[in-house]
Amino acid sequence: MAEYVRNLWYMAGWEAEVADGGWLARRLLDRPWLIYRTSDGDYAMIADRCPHRFAPLSRGRRDGDTIVCGYHGLGFDATGACKHSPFGKTLPDSVRVATLPVVARYGALWFWPGDTAQADPAHIPDFAFMADTSEHVPGHMMMNANYELIADNLMDLSHVEFLHVESFGVSGELFTGKHSVKQDADGAIWNKWDMTNIRPQQWIVDQVGEGVNVDSELHMRWHAPAAMALRIGNVRAGDSSKTPVVPPMLNPHILTPETQTATHYFFTHGHGDFAAELARRVFEEEDHPMLEAVQASMGDTDFWEARPLILESDAGAIRARRRLMQLRKAEAA
Amino acid sequence: MAEYVRNLWYMAGWEAEVADGGWLARRLLDRPWLIYRTSDGDYAMIADRCPHRFAPLSRGRRDGDTIVCGYHGLGFDATGACKHSPFGKTLPDSVRVATLPVVARYGALWFWPGDTAQADPAHIPDFAFMADTSEHVPGHMMMNANYELIADNLMDLSHVEFLHVESFGVSGELFTGKHSVKQDADGAIWNKWDMTNIRPQQWIVDQVGEGVNVDSELHMRWHAPAAMALRIGNVRAGDSSKTPVVPPMLNPHILTPETQTATHYFFTHGHGDFAAELARRVFEEEDHPMLEAVQASMGDTDFWEARPLILESDAGAIRARRRLMQLRKAEAA
Amino acid sequence: MAEYVRNLWYMAGWEAEVADGGWLARRLLDRPWLIYRTSDGDYAMIADRCPHRFAPLSRGRRDGDTIVCGYHGLGFDATGACKHSPFGKTLPDSVRVATLPVVARYGALWFWPGDTAQADPAHIPDFAFMADTSEHVPGHMMMNANYELIADNLMDLSHVEFLHVESFGVSGELFTGKHSVKQDADGAIWNKWDMTNIRPQQWIVDQVGEGVNVDSELHMRWHAPAAMALRIGNVRAGDSSKTPVVPPMLNPHILTPETQTATHYFFTHGHGDFAAELARRVFEEEDHPMLEAVQASMGDTDFWEARPLILESDAGAIRARRRLMQLRKAEAA
Repeated sequence: MAEYVRNLWYMAGWEAEVADGGWLARRLLDRPWLIYRTSDGDYAMIADRCPHRFAPLSRGRRDGDTIVCGYHGLGFDATGACKHSPFGKTLPDSVRVATLPVVARYGALWFWPGDTAQADPAHIPDFAFMADTSEHVPGHMMMNANYELIADNLMDLSHVEFLHVESFGVSGELFTGKHSVKQDADGAIWNKWDMTNIRPQQWIVDQVGEGVNVDSELHMRWHAPAAMALRIGNVRAGDSSKTPVVPPMLNPHILTPETQTATHYFFTHGHGDFAAELARRVFEEEDHPMLEAVQASMGDTDFWEARPLILESDAGAIRARRRLMQLRKAEAA
Repeated sequence: MAEYVRNLWYMAGWEAEVADGGWLARRLLDRPWLIYRTSDGDYAMIADRCPHRFAPLSRGRRDGDTIVCGYHGLGFDATGACKHSPFGKTLPDSVRVATLPVVARYGALWFWPGDTAQADPAHIPDFAFMADTSEHVPGHMMMNANYELIADNLMDLSHVEFLHVESFGVSGELFTGKHSVKQDADGAIWNKWDMTNIRPQQWIVDQVGEGVNVDSELHMRWHAPAAMALRIGNVRAGDSSKTPVVPPMLNPHILTPETQTATHYFFTHGHGDFAAELARRVFEEEDHPMLEAVQASMGDTDFWEARPLILESDAGAIRARRRLMQLRKAEAA
Repeated sequence: MAEYVRNLWYMAGWEAEVADGGWLARRLLDRPWLIYRTSDGDYAMIADRCPHRFAPLSRGRRDGDTIVCGYHGLGFDATGACKHSPFGKTLPDSVRVATLPVVARYGALWFWPGDTAQADPAHIPDFAFMADTSEHVPGHMMMNANYELIADNLMDLSHVEFLHVESFGVSGELFTGKHSVKQDADGAIWNKWDMTNIRPQQWIVDQVGEGVNVDSELHMRWHAPAAMALRIGNVRAGDSSKTPVVPPMLNPHILTPETQTATHYFFTHGHGDFAAELARRVFEEEDHPMLEAVQASMGDTDFWEARPLILESDAGAIRARRRLMQLRKAEAA
């Protein structure tokens, strides 16, 4: 399996997942971590493994900003330092647990598993839109599939016409339009589908009525390692003023490896039962089993060793895979 | 584990397992396959794995004789050719999935995983008897054991006196007779037990009454890799006319590896609840747990490396193992 | 993982676990064994695997002192010799299953997996106290953790102040006293905690009333590989006559590897619901999940390769680990 790229911001979870006075314990990039909010309001991220007998610290308790191991009572603070030895002895400064930089932004927590000196929050990709909790209910799902296989799914939306044909009520015209892939100077990749004068998706028909054709755009923006934002826009066909016929939708699809074959999938959906049910159906019933079947089908085989057929619709997915390969190569050097 | 012998017909399943307008998806010899009946009435067997993103084609749908992938819509026909690319582009002829020769015979489907040029249906072993659906209800069971361990079981029927003593009501005289093992010119092995003047098995006593002794035969015929037919015959002791006291029974016991440690076991039983229940008891309650316990006991150890004690009653089983070793050696050369 | 030390007595189980006329089947040191009581009253321990087709003999039946395989009827006696071949032929003397010396003592069964010539029952560690069934109800639990990790737990009782703080109602003063570790000439290790003038544990307060301080001792005795006896004594603070304020408690904690990452934990508790419930709570709810979490956290990593932080309270645990290393080294030489 391919190495993780380390000098990047990864999403660890939602702020809402960190219990008040508690923590979020989560395996990320093959290691167990514990994230908590300290009394100064900042977040801390420390290894969830005591250096004494390797007990998960998340089996212990908080004592202020110190996490006390539930096995023999060693306590570690937000800097990873051992601040509490149960039997009165002071332990050497070298006794500590690993920490990682972690930053809260847009309602999400971002961590940097690489060289700490390079951990500039300015490089966290822009997901400002998802901070609007009136529009976004955060979601989290585990998929037993490699994160790049899931990114392939998201970077080739043509699968919507097959895998999601019933849930989304798509018309078959979705991918008749123009497909373009562009890479920004900062490495972000835009994977755009623009359709002209098509019958809209069923959920739009439900709102604007039958017989109205639209110009439609599906724009996916990708940031390494696998943080994506999808914008869906629709205007009346030929409307040069570009007035939306339904409010444009903007949603995050952010992937973080738990391991090489299991992935945290962070998403949002709108408020209300309908939106929650649609998200559940699309993610849990359609994408989830297909992606796990793909992973099972591949087993331990490396993606390129399996000699996949590359289609034109893969252009965005392959561009993203190449970008990760470049970053991997740069870090190995 | 030993290589599979490839230039042989293996049973893939029963024709009755292929749903009308659908398919049978099954893992055979470590790979996933999809078998379906085309509009011309023939069967097709294609790899159950799309070459694009490795989705199982069995998660898709049929469009006539084309199997359309449920992920991105590529369609493959019975020859393995890609006949449908969703975005209008013609794909090169090299885009295809693997196929195997598959033939329907005797109500079963037989496939040839080796050199296609040698796949002559004349070499399918003779199981004509099981085509008679008035006598045979087809059955299929998975066992988590290597197929040669299960063949050992069938080629050494002495186990009936211990493992099946209650279900079959055997008398202890079953193996007092003559045991012979012979190999035909074509490699078929006959493993014959002939008993003279014995108390019959309980199910025969139930039909002919107490006090009648029989001359009894248990003849197992084996074909590589592990297709067996068992004939049970009983005549009144000393009856030189060989008139059966109960109708002779002829049953298939055909094994196909799913993997090295999991096997498809194809069998038949008679109509009616009694026959179904007896089969269930013998296979599911007696053979099944024993064979899985044997496999668990051996773990990954090769059979010969485990230095098994060889008994005289093993003669047929060992002959079959040797025949497979010869075939393996010939294919490796 | 570290090799097992072989020239030692290990506990296989409790005599009470061997059913009358039956046996105890148990995996010990990576292999399956069958222990039964023969007609002369002695115990026998034979490999639970027939040499013919590797069926577990425990799937068979007893015929007097012979265990008859349930698959093809071979019978083995307490010496491992094949005494019964179902088809009348005498098998060579070399046909046998492995046996190990096994001895009943103190209500427990002890086996010697090493050089039989050295298997002197005089070396079985002294657990005479646990033979008193008026005081001791035997218990057995599986833990998915390496036995040395569990011994670490028992040899560093400071964990009681954290992991068992609620069940035992400890006061925080338990480990204020003197801690000493000593090794006997025969290799036994004494790990002693002696506390002076402390508030007693809650269960003692319940018996002697509030306001009585005690001198308290927690003495753990360890024998290789991992047989431990814990003595808890309490006298009124300063009482030079050492008259117990509550009866001293003496309990076994004896560990035998099933595999490198699964352990049989043998213990006793007192009669009555309260004692059973306390044992269940301490073992099942507190130690059990913590130790399995530690094992999961370590994965396949060797203990020393994981570079554990060593605390002063570890002195006994580390002494025991060193003793095993010496024994291992001596056996490898």
